[in-house]
Amino acid sequence: MTAPRPHVVILGAGFGGMAAARELSRAHVEVTLIDQRNHHLFQPLLYQVATAALSPADIAGPIRSIVSDMPNVRVLLERVTGVDKAAWEVNLESGRTVPYDWLIVATGARHSYFGNDAWAEHAPGIKTIDDATAVRCKVLLALERAETETDPERRKALLTFVIIGGGPTGVEMAGAIAELAHRSTSRDFRSITPHCSRVVLVDGGPRLLAAFPEDLSAAAQRAIEHLGVEVHLNGRVTHVAHDHVEIGGEAIATFTAIWAAGVRASPAAKWLGLASDAAGRVVINPDLSVPNCPNIFVIGDTAACDGPDGRALPGIAPVAKQQGKHVAQQIVATLRGVACKPFRYRHYGNLATIGRKRAVIDFGRLHVTGFTAWVLWSVAHVYFLVGYRNRLAVGWNLLWNYLTFARHARLITGEVPAVHAVPSLQPAE
Amino acid sequence: MTAPRPHVVILGAGFGGMAAARELSRAHVEVTLIDQRNHHLFQPLLYQVATAALSPADIAGPIRSIVSDMPNVRVLLERVTGVDKAAWEVNLESGRTVPYDWLIVATGARHSYFGNDAWAEHAPGIKTIDDATAVRCKVLLALERAETETDPERRKALLTFVIIGGGPTGVEMAGAIAELAHRSTSRDFRSITPHCSRVVLVDGGPRLLAAFPEDLSAAAQRAIEHLGVEVHLNGRVTHVAHDHVEIGGEAIATFTAIWAAGVRASPAAKWLGLASDAAGRVVINPDLSVPNCPNIFVIGDTAACDGPDGRALPGIAPVAKQQGKHVAQQIVATLRGVACKPFRYRHYGNLATIGRKRAVIDFGRLHVTGFTAWVLWSVAHVYFLVGYRNRLAVGWNLLWNYLTFARHARLITGEVPAVHAVPSLQPAE
Repeated sequence: MTAPRPHVVILGAGFGGMAAARELSRAHVEVTLIDQRNHHLFQPLLYQVATAALSPADIAGPIRSIVSDMPNVRVLLERVTGVDKAAWEVNLESGRTVPYDWLIVATGARHSYFGNDAWAEHAPGIKTIDDATAVRCKVLLALERAETETDPERRKALLTFVIIGGGPTGVEMAGAIAELAHRSTSRDFRSITPHCSRVVLVDGGPRLLAAFPEDLSAAAQRAIEHLGVEVHLNGRVTHVAHDHVEIGGEAIATFTAIWAAGVRASPAAKWLGLASDAAGRVVINPDLSVPNCPNIFVIGDTAACDGPDGRALPGIAPVAKQQGKHVAQQIVATLRGVACKPFRYRHYGNLATIGRKRAVIDFGRLHVTGFTAWVLWSVAHVYFLVGYRNRLAVGWNLLWNYLTFARHARLITGEVPAVHAVPSLQPAE
Repeated sequence: MTAPRPHVVILGAGFGGMAAARELSRAHVEVTLIDQRNHHLFQPLLYQVATAALSPADIAGPIRSIVSDMPNVRVLLERVTGVDKAAWEVNLESGRTVPYDWLIVATGARHSYFGNDAWAEHAPGIKTIDDATAVRCKVLLALERAETETDPERRKALLTFVIIGGGPTGVEMAGAIAELAHRSTSRDFRSITPHCSRVVLVDGGPRLLAAFPEDLSAAAQRAIEHLGVEVHLNGRVTHVAHDHVEIGGEAIATFTAIWAAGVRASPAAKWLGLASDAAGRVVINPDLSVPNCPNIFVIGDTAACDGPDGRALPGIAPVAKQQGKHVAQQIVATLRGVACKPFRYRHYGNLATIGRKRAVIDFGRLHVTGFTAWVLWSVAHVYFLVGYRNRLAVGWNLLWNYLTFARHARLITGEVPAVHAVPSLQPAE
């Protein structure tokens, strides 16, 4: 009696994919949500995992749990290898194919080293749980090794942390590392003191937080310098090695460099055989569909989409969520015979936090800084966390950390390289 | 004016080493605490991490934080390679040596495959955080793969979990896996149902929990069978492969075998050039010192120590803690010219939990089972967790999980092997 429901396949269970799934869970369609990981990740708080303030499970929830109340949504843990646009099929690494009537590509982005992929080994970025726990280990191990190091030059290098990239992630990481290093060395270590450690934040541009208004950039720089972070502006990174970072020819000795400088979209353009911009993002139509395929949409960090001011929309959660909701609504509308509408981004604000109790927020006309902004930042982040339990856990952890300066998740796990595996510092050329 | 303080070196920051450090923090000595990891681990709750109920940071705390209020205790993150008894020095992997006046060896135990080390790859044990997260990934991945598997035999094998060893760890793991598999498949999965999954608990002896009185063994078996676990007693494991486990010649097809059958002490006997028992534990004097070296003590899982009934003391936290405190007191007494006393173990009780709301407790004359025992178990475990914050976090998580059956830490992290990397089932010989 009933016709078979149209099948919508969503690639990626980030903010965009989840928003689309949620919207489609109320529609008369079947949904298959495919992700290479089993968890949805609240990426804006990933730097808190990297700096030992939160546990991975505090900011990530199993995708299956999140969609368990959406009976028309099916979850597949698989890697995508390509899309057959002619056959309307997604190819998976397992050799399986999944047919679709509609396809939503929301596979996000990874960090990019601008062609210097050899730097990845020495300056990890922070995009996944594994990235964040690896950075956590690296930072904590550097402190441990500094505690027993007798050579003053090596100790200085072990206690130098270089964060490359002055966007929100870089600013947040630098602030959190400065607090971690200064606070924990003041109580827990016997040989090293807070004065020993040095946190350097490097950006290639003339100011931090380039996407924010200039007064907020200045406020952020003041706040982060107040935390003891050295800010190097107009600093072009020319080389990254395991024991130093070169900025415009000058070498900074460090064993802990962290990459927050650039992203590159997932290979969706290649899967779809479409044009991409310099960051690998798919060039799309105003309604977020791709050229010549009205049943394929690309959203979030994978899509090159211009905002109302003509500038490219930033790679942030609100953009992905609004786009996910938009394409889901367009699919439902099209099924009812209504024409597609162009996507319009509604900008509510742009936030970045600096350390334990400062933030900057750009609400458009209204700019908020300092502690007030931090409170708003905390409430917004806890509120948007998926799942009631995570909200409570993160709220509790953030409050506890605020009150006590604690960093409870200071775990070094995995295969720890032996201490002597850190070779002597080589003089930089 | 003051003489240099005697230097006590403690190897291992488990229950024994931490108890010794705490006792010695009040004495006129210098203490160096050496561990290859940066965290003290509450091992009794490790199975909860392996079954996604708790996060690693809930049951582990940085050693430095725990001793931060003990100014005479210094922490080193290092691996021990040997002890030079003649020179009174500990040799470390970094090439450094640490001189001691007194040495306390508390380096614990690892699981043992009774000479079949090839089984380790297919049946991981649970002794460290990394072990537990690896088992967690294995269990969760098996469920994910079963969801998309179309071959009924392979699906059955993916949904079969075999736990080898019927001691407290094995019983706890089997109960927790049964609940995880049954509960999460009932809501979050679309193809597989609770009836599909099979949890098998194998023990070589005639009853579970051999260290407990017989009535408690029987109660535990009833409780765990009530959760849907199949109990195979007198079952000798003769082979473990990646796709099956052989028990007395009979093969059970499974991709998820977990080892809880035996432990082997850390190589302290080798470091010290001393005699060891079959499990590698150092044979010690009644005062816990080692033969011919009154300034070296061995405690906890590394020591072979008989209880008042002539049976070897079990490898549990209360034994290690009492021994740690005892040797610390003996060192202080000896420094004051008082002779060493033999160690006496005070037995307070023996606990094992079965699933979400049952436990068995042996208080000697009093045996407690069922929900009452579970409440006592919960209170005891939360109470003994090091650190106020961890107590609150674990208490909260246990209560939350109890009320909701949630498994919030269901994260698959690390390099996930591709689905097709699971080869077809081979008929067992």
